[in-house]
Amino acid sequence: MITIMEIQKAHERIIPFIHRTPIFTNKSLNQESGADLYFKCENFQKAGSFKIRGATNAVMLLSDDELCRGVVTASSGNHGAALAMAVTSRSGSVQVVMPINTPQIKVENVIRNGGEIIWCDPNIKSREKVLKKIIDKTGSILIHPYNDRNIIVGQGTAAKEFVEDVPNLDIIVSPVSGGGLLSGTLIYSKEINSKVFVYGAEPEEANDAFRSLKHGSIQLNKTTDTICDGLRAQLGDLNFSIIKEKVDEIITVSEKEIINAMRMVWERMKIIVEPSCAITLGAILKRKDEIKGKKIGLILSGGNVDLSRLPWRES
Amino acid sequence: MITIMEIQKAHERIIPFIHRTPIFTNKSLNQESGADLYFKCENFQKAGSFKIRGATNAVMLLSDDELCRGVVTASSGNHGAALAMAVTSRSGSVQVVMPINTPQIKVENVIRNGGEIIWCDPNIKSREKVLKKIIDKTGSILIHPYNDRNIIVGQGTAAKEFVEDVPNLDIIVSPVSGGGLLSGTLIYSKEINSKVFVYGAEPEEANDAFRSLKHGSIQLNKTTDTICDGLRAQLGDLNFSIIKEKVDEIITVSEKEIINAMRMVWERMKIIVEPSCAITLGAILKRKDEIKGKKIGLILSGGNVDLSRLPWRES
Repeated sequence: MITIMEIQKAHERIIPFIHRTPIFTNKSLNQESGADLYFKCENFQKAGSFKIRGATNAVMLLSDDELCRGVVTASSGNHGAALAMAVTSRSGSVQVVMPINTPQIKVENVIRNGGEIIWCDPNIKSREKVLKKIIDKTGSILIHPYNDRNIIVGQGTAAKEFVEDVPNLDIIVSPVSGGGLLSGTLIYSKEINSKVFVYGAEPEEANDAFRSLKHGSIQLNKTTDTICDGLRAQLGDLNFSIIKEKVDEIITVSEKEIINAMRMVWERMKIIVEPSCAITLGAILKRKDEIKGKKIGLILSGGNVDLSRLPWRES
Repeated sequence: MITIMEIQKAHERIIPFIHRTPIFTNKSLNQESGADLYFKCENFQKAGSFKIRGATNAVMLLSDDELCRGVVTASSGNHGAALAMAVTSRSGSVQVVMPINTPQIKVENVIRNGGEIIWCDPNIKSREKVLKKIIDKTGSILIHPYNDRNIIVGQGTAAKEFVEDVPNLDIIVSPVSGGGLLSGTLIYSKEINSKVFVYGAEPEEANDAFRSLKHGSIQLNKTTDTICDGLRAQLGDLNFSIIKEKVDEIITVSEKEIINAMRMVWERMKIIVEPSCAITLGAILKRKDEIKGKKIGLILSGGNVDLSRLPWRES
């Protein structure tokens, strides 16, 4: 069982290497939703997303010997860049196995942060094969993007800052993909305030967490045909065990609702967020009756968007 | 002559109605420029730009009798929305004369803030004719977007906050169009620190301020064929008298340099800014030798961008 004390210690450990990201509010979106919305802006985080929290925590906990062997991960996105930043800041070397259809901006972020990219085909089989080959050959340490205790503990530090900066939230909404951020958020925020509701927001088109919760056991994604390139991963078993126990609900959101919410955040708040976190706004806008007058925290988890491929047409 | 005491008083007057916008920094852009860059984020300001400062100041100084007559302005953009917000917050009525080619987002902002739009053709003659007709008919009070003492004083409050929050800036860069923001910035910042350099950043394609300074008298724009829809106005005479006396230089920036700078701000800082203020980054990136190691303040004046019409192609 992960305790909040572990999250507190992780926070102390990673503070020198991360930003304490600001909380934004927006009058116009408060009017739109009928609630008091607080946005935790992890899109302004180092390497452009919350992933640096877990990655830094996991890398800081490696021994020098382990670090010398090299670090490897599989990531189609922000975890790869974050891990590269964390490992190179300890002067280690890191290989990131990425599917060949990864958005260009996420490829560049890995390279800019000193990671080496090893390509795989965009399916689990190819990824696992490439990963295994690297590990067998080099003995590198695998740091999984979410199904890893140290990662979950690190991601929980976002919720720690959030509830310190905005006490008495009624509801917290986190995106859910593999489940690292949601499970860390659940552990911290439910322990601090047992009355807080915590929701996961998930694309209808990659709804494995929603179905897993319903069935009581992990279900595979049937499709991952969503604009949320950060939310296509398969729920991890460590993550699921926490989510199953603690989450209040997984709210699924359609592609149209996600894109609408993303455009609202861009136009009203003047900040760039990924569809993978605009989904949190999309989720609560489906529940206007329930959220009326409530104090709601939304985790804007990242801001790495390919600006040449936006989901709205030229007018 | 406008004094800094007027700006200080204006600041007290408008504080309840504006945001004290944050200062952002960005490690990656510091590396890119070789300087320490500080960005005053007026893109997060109420109504989406610094214009609320001058508009609120001017509207607060109207008597009740004047307000009853109604307020009118001509604006292709942010001043119109800001004035609408300022006037309706005093329960007055406001008409905004807008050219028919105004970007949709700026039209919507005026309407959302309670302004009534009166269309004109996109030329000075039509605008003046429509304006005169309204004033003759209604006796409304004209609040000019920049060639107005109260407006200049109000816009100067952005520089006041900036130098309070970041003391000892070596250089401040403001966009220049009609000259309201630049002249207010010059008055405040040069009085507080006579050693600070203040630059105006202007599109090559609408370079009336650059040429006016060179000739010593106001020159008309030969073209306004720039992506910076906020920088197509003609320099005001009150503004020019201040700029001529105090500015260190007007730096002109090409369309390509403006678009590059805008994309850099969006991608690295994860915030949405208009090309009309990304131009400040474009300007200093032309002067890498000069700015090396210096502390530079850039005013990001607004964030009202039509997201359906971005200046980069789909890849």
